[in-house]
Amino acid sequence: MSKIKKSLHTELGHSTPDKITVRGRDLPSEILGHFNLGDMAFLELTGRAPTPQQSVTFNAILVTLVEHGITPSALVARLTYAGAPESLQAAVAAGLCGLGSVFVGSTEGAARMLYQAIAAGSAPTQAPDVLARAIVADHRSRKEIVPGLGHPLHKPIDPRTPRLFQIAAENGLSGHYVALMQAVQSEAERVSGKSLPINATGAIGAIACEFGFPWRIIRGLGVMARAVGLVGHILEEIDDPMGVEIWQRVEREAGGPRQDG
Amino acid sequence: MSKIKKSLHTELGHSTPDKITVRGRDLPSEILGHFNLGDMAFLELTGRAPTPQQSVTFNAILVTLVEHGITPSALVARLTYAGAPESLQAAVAAGLCGLGSVFVGSTEGAARMLYQAIAAGSAPTQAPDVLARAIVADHRSRKEIVPGLGHPLHKPIDPRTPRLFQIAAENGLSGHYVALMQAVQSEAERVSGKSLPINATGAIGAIACEFGFPWRIIRGLGVMARAVGLVGHILEEIDDPMGVEIWQRVEREAGGPRQDG
Amino acid sequence: MSKIKKSLHTELGHSTPDKITVRGRDLPSEILGHFNLGDMAFLELTGRAPTPQQSVTFNAILVTLVEHGITPSALVARLTYAGAPESLQAAVAAGLCGLGSVFVGSTEGAARMLYQAIAAGSAPTQAPDVLARAIVADHRSRKEIVPGLGHPLHKPIDPRTPRLFQIAAENGLSGHYVALMQAVQSEAERVSGKSLPINATGAIGAIACEFGFPWRIIRGLGVMARAVGLVGHILEEIDDPMGVEIWQRVEREAGGPRQDG
Amino acid sequence: MSKIKKSLHTELGHSTPDKITVRGRDLPSEILGHFNLGDMAFLELTGRAPTPQQSVTFNAILVTLVEHGITPSALVARLTYAGAPESLQAAVAAGLCGLGSVFVGSTEGAARMLYQAIAAGSAPTQAPDVLARAIVADHRSRKEIVPGLGHPLHKPIDPRTPRLFQIAAENGLSGHYVALMQAVQSEAERVSGKSLPINATGAIGAIACEFGFPWRIIRGLGVMARAVGLVGHILEEIDDPMGVEIWQRVEREAGGPRQDG
Repeated sequence: MSKIKKSLHTELGHSTPDKITVRGRDLPSEILGHFNLGDMAFLELTGRAPTPQQSVTFNAILVTLVEHGITPSALVARLTYAGAPESLQAAVAAGLCGLGSVFVGSTEGAARMLYQAIAAGSAPTQAPDVLARAIVADHRSRKEIVPGLGHPLHKPIDPRTPRLFQIAAENGLSGHYVALMQAVQSEAERVSGKSLPINATGAIGAIACEFGFPWRIIRGLGVMARAVGLVGHILEEIDDPMGVEIWQRVEREAGGPRQDG
Repeated sequence: MSKIKKSLHTELGHSTPDKITVRGRDLPSEILGHFNLGDMAFLELTGRAPTPQQSVTFNAILVTLVEHGITPSALVARLTYAGAPESLQAAVAAGLCGLGSVFVGSTEGAARMLYQAIAAGSAPTQAPDVLARAIVADHRSRKEIVPGLGHPLHKPIDPRTPRLFQIAAENGLSGHYVALMQAVQSEAERVSGKSLPINATGAIGAIACEFGFPWRIIRGLGVMARAVGLVGHILEEIDDPMGVEIWQRVEREAGGPRQDG
Repeated sequence: MSKIKKSLHTELGHSTPDKITVRGRDLPSEILGHFNLGDMAFLELTGRAPTPQQSVTFNAILVTLVEHGITPSALVARLTYAGAPESLQAAVAAGLCGLGSVFVGSTEGAARMLYQAIAAGSAPTQAPDVLARAIVADHRSRKEIVPGLGHPLHKPIDPRTPRLFQIAAENGLSGHYVALMQAVQSEAERVSGKSLPINATGAIGAIACEFGFPWRIIRGLGVMARAVGLVGHILEEIDDPMGVEIWQRVEREAGGPRQDG
Repeated sequence: MSKIKKSLHTELGHSTPDKITVRGRDLPSEILGHFNLGDMAFLELTGRAPTPQQSVTFNAILVTLVEHGITPSALVARLTYAGAPESLQAAVAAGLCGLGSVFVGSTEGAARMLYQAIAAGSAPTQAPDVLARAIVADHRSRKEIVPGLGHPLHKPIDPRTPRLFQIAAENGLSGHYVALMQAVQSEAERVSGKSLPINATGAIGAIACEFGFPWRIIRGLGVMARAVGLVGHILEEIDDPMGVEIWQRVEREAGGPRQDG
C-alpha cells in the first residue's frame, strides 16, 4: 500500500496544560455557563453558536427524542444493567444499539427523501405539490412506504408534530422542507385514501433539513437524545427494577411447551 | 421460583393515541419549547423542572463532559463508523463502552467518597478539614489514589475546575460537598508534598453531590454528555476521515518484527 | 392495539432444577465432551449435530474469521479495554459493533447474491455461466461492485479461498453455489479485464449457501468468530498494551495545526 | 508528555499479499481444516495448539457457556435486533454488554479467589481444607458470598458441574484448583449449614485455573461462547420473533397506573 500518508486532524477540540479549546472557543470562559447542552450539540455539529431562534428549535427537536416511556431500547438498557451494574456506560451503549432502521432511524429516511427533491443549499425547482407527487409515485412504484408518515399508536395525529412545526415557524425555521413534507403527506393521503399523519420523526427530519444538517448525521440527533433518556431509565431501574422480573416471566413462558399453533 | 409476581411500572413516560406524557407533564405543550436538553436530563433524573440556577449549573456540568478532542472513546467511534457506516448508533455505542473506571468514571469515585463522609441529605458531623484528614489517611492506608485529584496534562490547575466552582457558587450550589472536596485537595497536597489540582471529574463529582444525585448514576452524566460529543466526531469522520489511516499505520507497524526490546 | 396475544416460545434451551436442555439434547450428558465449539454453533443454528464432513467444513469457515491481525475492530476492543478494564465484555462488544457493511458483512452480500440466482433448496434453472452473466451485468448496470471479489491486500489471490474450497470439496460441500461464485468471478474478470480473486468472504458466503444458512444470519458467522479473536487481542493488550500509545500519538498529531492542504 | 515512544507490536497475526499468519502458523495450510473453533480460541489465548486432552476439556468449558435458554442477554439481543435488523453485529454486541459481575462474570471471581490461595504456576503451600477454611472465613468476615457456589435454580446440584469435573479428570486437568474449589464448597456448607453446590461458573473458574489462564481474561471465555449462542437467538428471532411482543406487553403494563403497593 504505497498511498501517500494522510495527516490526522480534528477541528473539534484540543488541550494544552492550561487551555481546553472546543471548536475554537475557550471551554471554561466562552462555553461553560453560556451554552446549554443542546447549544453545545449545535456547536459540535456546526462549529457555530446557535442564534436564540436556532437554540429553541434545535433543543426542541432533541428534547422530543429523549423519552418515550418503555421502548425496546429502554428495556435493553435495563436488562443490561441488571447483569452488569458496575458498567452503566455499557447499559446505555446496549440501549443505543437498536436505534436503527425500524425506530429512531426513520428521521434519516425522511431527511434523505427531502434532500433528494431539494438539494441542500438550493432553491426548489418546482412547487411542493409537484415534487410531492413525484416522491409518492416513486415510493409506490418501488412498493416502499414513505418515511415520516403514519404511527401505530398516535392517530389521527402525532401530537408532537404540530407543536414542532409551530416552534419551527415561530423561529423562522419552517421553509421549503417543512412545506414539502406537508405536501408529501397530503399527496400520500390522497393517493392511499388513508389518514397518514406526519409522525415526530418525519417532522424532525424536515426541520433538520431546514438547519441544513447532512442526512447521514441526522440519526445522531436521536442517538444523543436517547442517551439522556436511557440514563433516566437506569436510575429508575436502580430504585424500582423491572429487568429481572421481565426476564423471569419470559423464561417461564418461553421455556415451556409451545402454547399456540 | 414461587416468588410473588412483581408488577411492572414506570414513572418516566407513557403514551396514549393523542397524548405523550413525560414525568407527568404533557410533552408537546409543557416541555417542547420550554426545556433545553440539559433541563430535560434534569427532569428525567429528578422528576422536577430545574430552577434557573440549577439549569445553569447542571447544563455547565454536562457541557464540560461533551468534548475533549481526540480521546480513546472518540477513536473507537470513528473506527467503528469506518466499518459500519449504516449503523451510526452502533458507533456511538461502541464509543461509550470505554467510559469506565479509568476515564469518565472517576466522577463516580469522587462523589462516592464525598457521600461516605457526608451522607446525602445530612449535615456534616465534623469540619471539612477533619473529614478530609480521615479521607486522605484512609486512601493512603489502602494505597489508593484519592479520586478527583490530579491530571496528567492539566497542570498546575485544571482550567475547568475554578470555572465550574464559580458557576456553582454564583448559583447557590456550592455547599458542604464542594468545601469538602477542596479540603481533601489541601490535605492531599499537604501530606504528599505534591501539587494535586482538583480535576474536572472531581469538581463535577462534588457539584453532583450538591444536587443530591445518587452516586450510582453520576457516571451517567458523563455518558449522556459524551454521546453528544461522539456524534460530533462521527460527523467530522464523514467529512475528513482518520479511522482507516490510523488502522493502516498501526497494522503496518504492529504486524512487522518487534522494534524495541 | 387489540392484536391477539402472541405466546412466547424458544426451542433453543430450557432448564429445570436438575436438567439443562439445549436444542432438545441433555447438555451435560449428550453435548459436553462430545461437541466442539464450532459443532455447538452448528447445533444452535440448525438444531442438528453436524456430520463429520459438516463439522470440518463449518469449523474451517469459522476459524478463518477469528483473527486477521490488527483490524479496526481489534483496535476498538483494545482502546475500549484501556478505559474500562473492569468490563471486558464491553470491550468485545465495542469491537463487534463495526462488523458491518464494509468489512465482515460482505459474506452476507455474497450469499444474498447467490441465493437470488439459485433459491435455497432449489436446483439451478440455468448453467452457472449463464447465471453469472446476468449477475455481473446487473451489478454493472447499477454501478455496484460484485460482493465477494477482490481484496486490497491479497493479490493476485486470497490464500484462504483455495483452501476453503478444497476443504468444502473434500467434504461434499462444494455444489451449485461454489460453482456459481467461481463463474461470477470468471465473468467479472472477463468483463472488467482485471484480476478479481474470490476473497475469503466470498468463499465463505458461497459455502454458507451450500449449508443452506439463511442469508440474514450469515454475518453472524463472522460475528461469533471475531468475538473469539477479540478476546485474544484483549489478553495481548493486558500483557503488552498499545491502546494508550495509539491514542496519545493521534491526540498529539490531530490536535495540532493541520499538516496538509 | 515527553515519554519515550513505545513501539506497537502484535504476535497474534499478520498478513502479506500471499500469506496470512496467525500466532506464527500459516492460516490456510496449518490451521484451516486442522483446528476446530475451540482449538482456535486456545491458540489465540496461549500461542499453542491444544493437546487432544486440552482440546476436549477446553471445548467443553466453552460449550457449557453457549446457551442457557432465555437469559437477559438473549432478550437484549432479540430486542435490539427488532429495532436494527440491518445491524446483526450490534444486536450481538448489545447482548454481550450485560455479561458483567452478576451473571457470567462469576467465573472470574472464582478463578481470582483460587489464584489468591495458590499462585499460578506454584505448588500449594497448604492442604486444600486448610486453604478453604481461610478462604471461607475471609469471605464471611467481609460479608461477601463465596464465588462459584450456589444457584437459584439448579438445586441440590448444578448438573453441569459433575460432568465438567469428570471431563477434566479424564483428561488430566483436575489438579490443585479443582480440589481447592471442592474443599471450599465443603467448608462453606459446613459453616453455613446450607447446601451450596458448585455451580457451572465455579467449575469453569477452577478448570480455567488448571489451564493457567490469567484471571483477568477468564470472563472472556463466557463472552466468546455467549456470542455463539446469541447468534442462535437472533436466528430464532428472525423466524419466530418475541421481541416486539415482550416490549408491547411491558409497555402496556408499566405505562399504566401502578398496580401494587
